[in-house]
Amino acid sequence: MSSETPGDVLVTRKVTFSSAHRYHRDEWSDEQNREEFGPCNNPYGHGHNYQLEVTVTGPIDRETGMVLNLREVDDILQSEVIARFDHRYINKEVPGFDDVVPTTENLVLYLWDLLAPVFSDRGVRLHRVRLFEDPNLWAEYSGGDA
Amino acid sequence: MSSETPGDVLVTRKVTFSSAHRYHRDEWSDEQNREEFGPCNNPYGHGHNYQLEVTVTGPIDRETGMVLNLREVDDILQSEVIARFDHRYINKEVPGFDDVVPTTENLVLYLWDLLAPVFSDRGVRLHRVRLFEDPNLWAEYSGGDA
Amino acid sequence: MSSETPGDVLVTRKVTFSSAHRYHRDEWSDEQNREEFGPCNNPYGHGHNYQLEVTVTGPIDRETGMVLNLREVDDILQSEVIARFDHRYINKEVPGFDDVVPTTENLVLYLWDLLAPVFSDRGVRLHRVRLFEDPNLWAEYSGGDA
Amino acid sequence: MSSETPGDVLVTRKVTFSSAHRYHRDEWSDEQNREEFGPCNNPYGHGHNYQLEVTVTGPIDRETGMVLNLREVDDILQSEVIARFDHRYINKEVPGFDDVVPTTENLVLYLWDLLAPVFSDRGVRLHRVRLFEDPNLWAEYSGGDA
Amino acid sequence: MSSETPGDVLVTRKVTFSSAHRYHRDEWSDEQNREEFGPCNNPYGHGHNYQLEVTVTGPIDRETGMVLNLREVDDILQSEVIARFDHRYINKEVPGFDDVVPTTENLVLYLWDLLAPVFSDRGVRLHRVRLFEDPNLWAEYSGGDA
Amino acid sequence: MSSETPGDVLVTRKVTFSSAHRYHRDEWSDEQNREEFGPCNNPYGHGHNYQLEVTVTGPIDRETGMVLNLREVDDILQSEVIARFDHRYINKEVPGFDDVVPTTENLVLYLWDLLAPVFSDRGVRLHRVRLFEDPNLWAEYSGGDA
Repeated sequence: MSSETPGDVLVTRKVTFSSAHRYHRDEWSDEQNREEFGPCNNPYGHGHNYQLEVTVTGPIDRETGMVLNLREVDDILQSEVIARFDHRYINKEVPGFDDVVPTTENLVLYLWDLLAPVFSDRGVRLHRVRLFEDPNLWAEYSGGDA
Repeated sequence: MSSETPGDVLVTRKVTFSSAHRYHRDEWSDEQNREEFGPCNNPYGHGHNYQLEVTVTGPIDRETGMVLNLREVDDILQSEVIARFDHRYINKEVPGFDDVVPTTENLVLYLWDLLAPVFSDRGVRLHRVRLFEDPNLWAEYSGGDA
Repeated sequence: MSSETPGDVLVTRKVTFSSAHRYHRDEWSDEQNREEFGPCNNPYGHGHNYQLEVTVTGPIDRETGMVLNLREVDDILQSEVIARFDHRYINKEVPGFDDVVPTTENLVLYLWDLLAPVFSDRGVRLHRVRLFEDPNLWAEYSGGDA
Repeated sequence: MSSETPGDVLVTRKVTFSSAHRYHRDEWSDEQNREEFGPCNNPYGHGHNYQLEVTVTGPIDRETGMVLNLREVDDILQSEVIARFDHRYINKEVPGFDDVVPTTENLVLYLWDLLAPVFSDRGVRLHRVRLFEDPNLWAEYSGGDA
Repeated sequence: MSSETPGDVLVTRKVTFSSAHRYHRDEWSDEQNREEFGPCNNPYGHGHNYQLEVTVTGPIDRETGMVLNLREVDDILQSEVIARFDHRYINKEVPGFDDVVPTTENLVLYLWDLLAPVFSDRGVRLHRVRLFEDPNLWAEYSGGDA
Repeated sequence: MSSETPGDVLVTRKVTFSSAHRYHRDEWSDEQNREEFGPCNNPYGHGHNYQLEVTVTGPIDRETGMVLNLREVDDILQSEVIARFDHRYINKEVPGFDDVVPTTENLVLYLWDLLAPVFSDRGVRLHRVRLFEDPNLWAEYSGGDA
């Protein structure tokens, strides 16, 4: 099955949040951390203006002409993403990253698991999450199954 | 079948047009319109600089190195899209929106139906239309069949 | 006096709003309106995602490190600009444009007159307003006197 | 098979290079070249700031949280793409374009063939190359087979 | 006198053109050219998508609400800039660059001299030309006198 | 004297760095810090992809056509700015911010004092530093004296 199912319209909302993070594994030596992660291992962390694109799909309501009211999308992204990540140090303040390196790859998996059931509850399907660490690097995930 | 068929190159052209629109259903009460559509229901309409990305695909001509001459793409987008939408109030000036709310979702369906046969006539396949209402909200459609 | 006074730091906030407008003068004939304003004269209006950059200046508070708390700037822009212009048809819904063509030039003059006294009341000086009608056209104003 | 395989995370890196090129076929008359290619046929060539998005995919390393260390991605793009294309006249200085018109379509096919085996050697799969000739025109390719 | 004269509104139009160029001085040795200009000295030239911002100023016409009709601005930029530079190799095809290295600095001086009298003839004043060689490098000029 | 001296060309280079920071004053109570700084006071800090525009001016070398060789500009920005700020927690890792809140305002003053003498040593004049904390908020400084 394709992750871009023909037949439905995809709707994408982009939001921004600012967080700090650090790449580090406690069980590694300082040398190994430095070798693998480079400046991302700097001890006090560094930060980004993350940009998140959340794409949902589903049938268009014939009366409203919408897949999902944008207000609902914004409420979900505010309570699930912005409130959790914005102005936070991910390693220490977002549950689930004490033993998981907060790479862009791991963050999109986390965001998928966070958002997929919430949108499912509203009757729409999460199609993809795409997260930009900066304008030149991003990761995306469309779900683990076909 | 995937909407991103491997084997062919996809070519995308981006154009811009400025339109006004309003979200409103005559058969609803003012309260219901306001409740559902919020400020998008304001009586005199509001507007956007829409950005449209049109993606086509097909075999590359071995001599020209092109899927379709860009001049032809631009002519199509000028006559079919810009001439129809630019500097227009969609609800009143674009045929087909008297009873259809001009949401981004409905607009991409409309644009697909408009453009797919035109490109088909030129021997290329319309792959996707993506319409940005603003930089933080967009809809896309890849055709209704697999 | 220069409008870019050395010695002070300039701080700029960018916000977005979506409006519709039309270029038209009642006292002109249809032909004259069409000749002068082209498609901007289309009868039902069209719209833009305006981007407004508001620049203020003043001494930096030694304790907070700020010219003005960003929350205050955002409150001002919300109540004075967004609430007045967003999702509105400028000609009919924003007071002052019944006899003034809502060009980008006239809009920056209007926004200057609107915002200069409000920032002055907070103890900072409005330095410049810059308004983008679209990414390829903008106007700016830095006040009428030195 | 879809080119967007569910189950894996996609990681994209964007890089920029500046090149010149010309559209021309020696075996055609001047008139035919001019007719087909327009100003792209101008005799001395013209140029672009190309932007290239390279998307790879593969399992995430559980310890590092990465599909592939970004340093490796950057080294590959530097040696394979930047060193070959940046500040070059493609027709004369990049091997393979003496008889191939350097359209965006042909360039993405070339870049795919160049990069797919290199990433394969590192244990990840090239998912897509997308090349912007300018912000309003781009081509992308996801490999010729499923 | 400040180049940002208070009292008038500034209006800016942005246009794009694609050109090739090369940094080279005939009277220098190959080594000296290479040493000074690096890859910009590559023998066949390279290219850019230039972005030009042209800012004019003058009194606002009370009836039209404009400093200068945008159609006139676009006609000037088309005939003076686009027709001269777009899809051209600057060193060989734009008169005046046979002995002048086409750096961004020299290009803005050239564009100023080209455009200032043309706008002056229309009764407006050229305020500034700003030329982006790429999104991370640009030059600007506001005229040689105070 | 104007900070935009007519007569010279301005050249601007843009670079990016990622840092974390926190707004906090030790001598204030937690309540006061929270009241004044809001989420910027969160205990572990947060971060941004800062974008810095550095503008220099001076006579154009008649032979090279440049105000200053771009390689020199890049070397200066690498050693003075990137090496100092990129992937750092500003409050703890950049000297000078132990008692100074790292607001955008204070950062541009710091960057001015850092860069002005370095460029002066190369025979060019620093004209302005502009620092974007994110695309919607920035500060700029053109020096404290005329």
